[in-house]
Amino acid sequence: MRKDQRSNNKIRQVTITPDYIKHPEGSVLIEFGDTKVICNASIEDRVPPFMRNQGKGWITAEYAMLPRATQQRNIRESSKGKVSGRTMEIQRLIGRALRSVVDLNRFGERTVWVDCDVIQADGGTRTASITGAFVAVVLAFHKLIEDKKIKKMPVTDFLAAISVGITSDGTELLDLDYQEDSEASVDMNVVMTGEGEFIEIQGTGEEATFTGDQLQTMLGLANEGVKELNIIQKTILGERVNRIGETAQTKEDPS
Amino acid sequence: MRKDQRSNNKIRQVTITPDYIKHPEGSVLIEFGDTKVICNASIEDRVPPFMRNQGKGWITAEYAMLPRATQQRNIRESSKGKVSGRTMEIQRLIGRALRSVVDLNRFGERTVWVDCDVIQADGGTRTASITGAFVAVVLAFHKLIEDKKIKKMPVTDFLAAISVGITSDGTELLDLDYQEDSEASVDMNVVMTGEGEFIEIQGTGEEATFTGDQLQTMLGLANEGVKELNIIQKTILGERVNRIGETAQTKEDPS
Amino acid sequence: MRKDQRSNNKIRQVTITPDYIKHPEGSVLIEFGDTKVICNASIEDRVPPFMRNQGKGWITAEYAMLPRATQQRNIRESSKGKVSGRTMEIQRLIGRALRSVVDLNRFGERTVWVDCDVIQADGGTRTASITGAFVAVVLAFHKLIEDKKIKKMPVTDFLAAISVGITSDGTELLDLDYQEDSEASVDMNVVMTGEGEFIEIQGTGEEATFTGDQLQTMLGLANEGVKELNIIQKTILGERVNRIGETAQTKEDPS
Amino acid sequence: MRKDQRSNNKIRQVTITPDYIKHPEGSVLIEFGDTKVICNASIEDRVPPFMRNQGKGWITAEYAMLPRATQQRNIRESSKGKVSGRTMEIQRLIGRALRSVVDLNRFGERTVWVDCDVIQADGGTRTASITGAFVAVVLAFHKLIEDKKIKKMPVTDFLAAISVGITSDGTELLDLDYQEDSEASVDMNVVMTGEGEFIEIQGTGEEATFTGDQLQTMLGLANEGVKELNIIQKTILGERVNRIGETAQTKEDPS
Amino acid sequence: MRKDQRSNNKIRQVTITPDYIKHPEGSVLIEFGDTKVICNASIEDRVPPFMRNQGKGWITAEYAMLPRATQQRNIRESSKGKVSGRTMEIQRLIGRALRSVVDLNRFGERTVWVDCDVIQADGGTRTASITGAFVAVVLAFHKLIEDKKIKKMPVTDFLAAISVGITSDGTELLDLDYQEDSEASVDMNVVMTGEGEFIEIQGTGEEATFTGDQLQTMLGLANEGVKELNIIQKTILGERVNRIGETAQTKEDPS
Amino acid sequence: MRKDQRSNNKIRQVTITPDYIKHPEGSVLIEFGDTKVICNASIEDRVPPFMRNQGKGWITAEYAMLPRATQQRNIRESSKGKVSGRTMEIQRLIGRALRSVVDLNRFGERTVWVDCDVIQADGGTRTASITGAFVAVVLAFHKLIEDKKIKKMPVTDFLAAISVGITSDGTELLDLDYQEDSEASVDMNVVMTGEGEFIEIQGTGEEATFTGDQLQTMLGLANEGVKELNIIQKTILGERVNRIGETAQTKEDPS
Repeated sequence: MRKDQRSNNKIRQVTITPDYIKHPEGSVLIEFGDTKVICNASIEDRVPPFMRNQGKGWITAEYAMLPRATQQRNIRESSKGKVSGRTMEIQRLIGRALRSVVDLNRFGERTVWVDCDVIQADGGTRTASITGAFVAVVLAFHKLIEDKKIKKMPVTDFLAAISVGITSDGTELLDLDYQEDSEASVDMNVVMTGEGEFIEIQGTGEEATFTGDQLQTMLGLANEGVKELNIIQKTILGERVNRIGETAQTKEDPS
Repeated sequence: MRKDQRSNNKIRQVTITPDYIKHPEGSVLIEFGDTKVICNASIEDRVPPFMRNQGKGWITAEYAMLPRATQQRNIRESSKGKVSGRTMEIQRLIGRALRSVVDLNRFGERTVWVDCDVIQADGGTRTASITGAFVAVVLAFHKLIEDKKIKKMPVTDFLAAISVGITSDGTELLDLDYQEDSEASVDMNVVMTGEGEFIEIQGTGEEATFTGDQLQTMLGLANEGVKELNIIQKTILGERVNRIGETAQTKEDPS
Repeated sequence: MRKDQRSNNKIRQVTITPDYIKHPEGSVLIEFGDTKVICNASIEDRVPPFMRNQGKGWITAEYAMLPRATQQRNIRESSKGKVSGRTMEIQRLIGRALRSVVDLNRFGERTVWVDCDVIQADGGTRTASITGAFVAVVLAFHKLIEDKKIKKMPVTDFLAAISVGITSDGTELLDLDYQEDSEASVDMNVVMTGEGEFIEIQGTGEEATFTGDQLQTMLGLANEGVKELNIIQKTILGERVNRIGETAQTKEDPS
Repeated sequence: MRKDQRSNNKIRQVTITPDYIKHPEGSVLIEFGDTKVICNASIEDRVPPFMRNQGKGWITAEYAMLPRATQQRNIRESSKGKVSGRTMEIQRLIGRALRSVVDLNRFGERTVWVDCDVIQADGGTRTASITGAFVAVVLAFHKLIEDKKIKKMPVTDFLAAISVGITSDGTELLDLDYQEDSEASVDMNVVMTGEGEFIEIQGTGEEATFTGDQLQTMLGLANEGVKELNIIQKTILGERVNRIGETAQTKEDPS
Repeated sequence: MRKDQRSNNKIRQVTITPDYIKHPEGSVLIEFGDTKVICNASIEDRVPPFMRNQGKGWITAEYAMLPRATQQRNIRESSKGKVSGRTMEIQRLIGRALRSVVDLNRFGERTVWVDCDVIQADGGTRTASITGAFVAVVLAFHKLIEDKKIKKMPVTDFLAAISVGITSDGTELLDLDYQEDSEASVDMNVVMTGEGEFIEIQGTGEEATFTGDQLQTMLGLANEGVKELNIIQKTILGERVNRIGETAQTKEDPS
Repeated sequence: MRKDQRSNNKIRQVTITPDYIKHPEGSVLIEFGDTKVICNASIEDRVPPFMRNQGKGWITAEYAMLPRATQQRNIRESSKGKVSGRTMEIQRLIGRALRSVVDLNRFGERTVWVDCDVIQADGGTRTASITGAFVAVVLAFHKLIEDKKIKKMPVTDFLAAISVGITSDGTELLDLDYQEDSEASVDMNVVMTGEGEFIEIQGTGEEATFTGDQLQTMLGLANEGVKELNIIQKTILGERVNRIGETAQTKEDPS
């Protein structure tokens, strides 16, 4: 039996607190059970050199953990003077995922910097980051609309991510906590749209392999989890939800 | 008039939330008005090389800000690959201050790592860090006592820090927020014990100088502020307060 | 029509040259069309600190490209003083993939360092690296057997990787070259065993999403490609093939 | 009794050798007893990016020690690849102190780089650096006047720094040498103007605290020491002394 | 007797494979016995900042070894985050040597990047690099001529390099392999033009010294070796040889 | 005519001030005209890892310039976070040169750290460094003898270095100052023993080549210069000179 009597196809208690930090254009605290991530979206009025003079915007993400977000204290990456491979993988994943549901042509030559800082970790920090970052980005674009800098929401669809895995005795689980994750033989992160299409699948079985059938079962669980996350995101976003996808149907230029 | 009708000799609303993060041995969220700092104290069962085989412990501190803790987003120090001079100054200050009220002979060859992570900044982040870190360290040592690893609290006295300054029109202020600090001509941080003695004074007037009389006025304000902070710390610590200073009076060895 | 009249479900011409560099315990040059990678496997008689005193071995991989392996010259990572996120992702992937088909308990406290150096790039460098690295590792372990340092081959199954993708007009392709890859809307790398099970799936659609049906079609293509690669690997390995999987069936200790 | 029969309120023998190195616009060797620091002031005809297009100048300082300036050889910071926290603190202090007595509006968009290189250390290297750097900066500005690049001396007042401390038996000392400093329980550096006002106070008692009375005694000693240093600076500067403070009284623009 | 019955005044078997990698403007694989180096010359249409707006070109070189080019695996310089002193010495030497036979005024504001990557090492990697890099550079310039970007070959003379040394028993040798080099008491690298003049001499006797007579003998051997290398270079270059030196005799401007 | 009426075969005024810095075991200030280098030799009672447990010592050198030793201020290498190729070449050269006249078997498992810090540069800093470092090392070993840690001087012969060059009009010069060096077409540094044998020759003609005859003339000049330097070294060393070479003739073990 899972902790908290959770059944195998259930996600943990998920809470999203909007406007968590006062300075960023968009900010949420997202909690997947005991995993807590601050997701801040900052708008900068220019793009990186490789994007200049194309009339388009850019979205990039950074991810970090406080040294004692985990059971054992980790050395700060600023002290080590370099960012680990794991951190780079995760922040590249978050950025790619967000860019897949945002129309870069619709918010001018601006950069959205998304910072996902894990203040407490208990498994699933990358999926919580993506799910929370999506809300922070919508809030930040909404502020641009309110400030009359753009007219339409550049976000084309919902976005959420969840982990699935297979335990050492072969059971498929949804939304693994740290304990479950460290005992699992297969670990997969799935990023999906509100329309139920795949954005990214990253599945790995370091000590084990998995069959095509197991893959299908895991993808089914992920699909259920993402739908639940979408509902929670919609509750927080309220009427701002209606603007999502509007650029997909319109031809207007950004102001 | 100051924001929130605060008079010149008053500190901001200060809140300390204990046990804020679940993994560290000691953890608090401290708020000085809109400045919010997570202070985590972690116990490691060994000391750095320069302290080995002396039968003593060590306390060291690290300080960082989330990129969007401030009005403008700052580049992460991990991305820059080095820690700034400002960060180094602050973390050296926090470490020195804590070591001045802890008897390093009383907790064996252990290191206390104190991490002060500013999640939202509005002036006074270093004084909030010291004041909160003190509470986190007491909580961490209390856990060592509960776990029967040491018998006495190695903390010898209370510790808190507050900023004082002089405005461009010559008025002395206690506990400056960001707006006040950026307009002040003199800026001073004062770290004091519960007994009212000085641990550290760092005063600087980059665009202005200050007289001996102005110095006295500022030190008087700081003294008042620190006394208020000590009261708040005591409320949070509850009966653990009684153990502070006990090593100063005893001769027992650490277990 | 694809370059070289290749049909959509065909891999490119694949060549593996064994014993390419004389110093390493195992060495091959692998070519996927115009993509050329030197894969060297080196045996070191100790393990990294986190693996010590467990009686087990370790396998780790590094990946790099010569500056002019690509159409535009890239700055050397040694000159930049840091390894890029892309490089880290790839070398972590190669290492994980190899460890999933090697029994770390069967070759003592040794590290296998696998170096995949791309001397000419035309798409699929990471899948060529994994496929070539597997052969280099088998050669290196075979040398340990010949030198009577271990008795059994610690490799438990075959391993190969191939890319699949979806073109902008919705066609699924196997083994994309650089031109195809840069025009594709979905890109996926699949790592599989000789038994046809999955080791790793990494699929991403930065500008597009993909459905469950498209996923199935791509996985089918990957399965065909991996089977072809296994045949080429077996030809090169000759009778050494028979030793693969032998540890999976035996209980003997490493000498 | 102190070394060299010095009484507690006396500074060491202080010598300033002007024009010590031939290339810099201003250069001195300053000696506080056995502490020897080369202070070079270099004029660059542009300012750092954050100061551009403001019509103002900038002053910045760097501080270093030769590896064997000390009793034990230190590893070069260039070999370590980073500057220590201690070095950063000192060079930030030197820069701030100099900027507080220079009118940045009076020498155009130029940077004064001040390099303080300790060739032999025996305590008080930062106070010797500030005191010597002041002279080097006046010499450099004097050269700008001679070269008819500016008309008035931008230096508004004298500047010197001295250390004070409290021994473990409670005696206050002026200008501690290395031996005294390493045994002291309180250590304070005081930077003052020729007018006797404070520019910076940095006092710390790592193993001990200090009372308000002790603070007053230390500040009184520092005041005496700075007055003596001002006299020595004036002797070296000769008639150039008369130009100090002239900008404070004039309204002319820099040429 | 030397390996392969080579006499003391003979170079090893030298092979140059042109057009080895397909992307670079000039590319060769050069082999000196078992030493194998890929030399790629890339043309970039701009010069580094210190060369801008002078109407001249620049040539720079980088040198690296694959980790397992040697008997023992070396740590990658990208992993260490810095380039070793040895690497820097060699790449500075290669760049200097090439610039001495190229007229920088004859190919516009372009940079030739020369990458020498040792894939297998057996002594003499720097002399093989220079000798091969020369051919790659001629090929790259020839491409510029074919593309009608320049009219004349900017190369003024041939260039090759060879090592000489003295064994511990006092015998002078030409073109030392790794084994010979590691046993030699004197080691010298000589870079010469096709005209038989010296471009660079670097001789060192770490455990031994050498006399003027020994120096003369070594220089004589080097002269013979360079002449042989020039013949091999000419064979590869074919009729392109005729263009070498043409700028030395002409006054035309680059187009 | 050369500056100071110096003829082409004359070295500049050379001055060596022994015991220049008080802490190092050996210390000199050496001046070649306006070039001034502090050479400190420090004894450490252990060797680097690659030399351990061989019963031998090690000598290594580091070289640096103060930022304003030159006409234009250079950025500190500690600020850049890395050591330049030029610095690395020079410090490797100094170390090699010293090791060629010291018997590493004669001073136990100790490291001699030689720091050459250029405080003022006017050409020839590397030759001044070698020539001064030799004296500092003899002084340091003499201190080991006085402290009864070793019995014999491990230095086997004298060592000095000088530069030679060819002007753009073809004249050979000895000991070039900065102005001469920047105008020369060929530049060569020669390191020789007291016995007149070569330790190291580094000659380069970046814009020009040189013939065998020119090489002979330059080597002749260098030989004269080194002899003069040896005389100056002997004067400073006084009766310590007699101990040089004694290990070359004895068989005693180090104490």
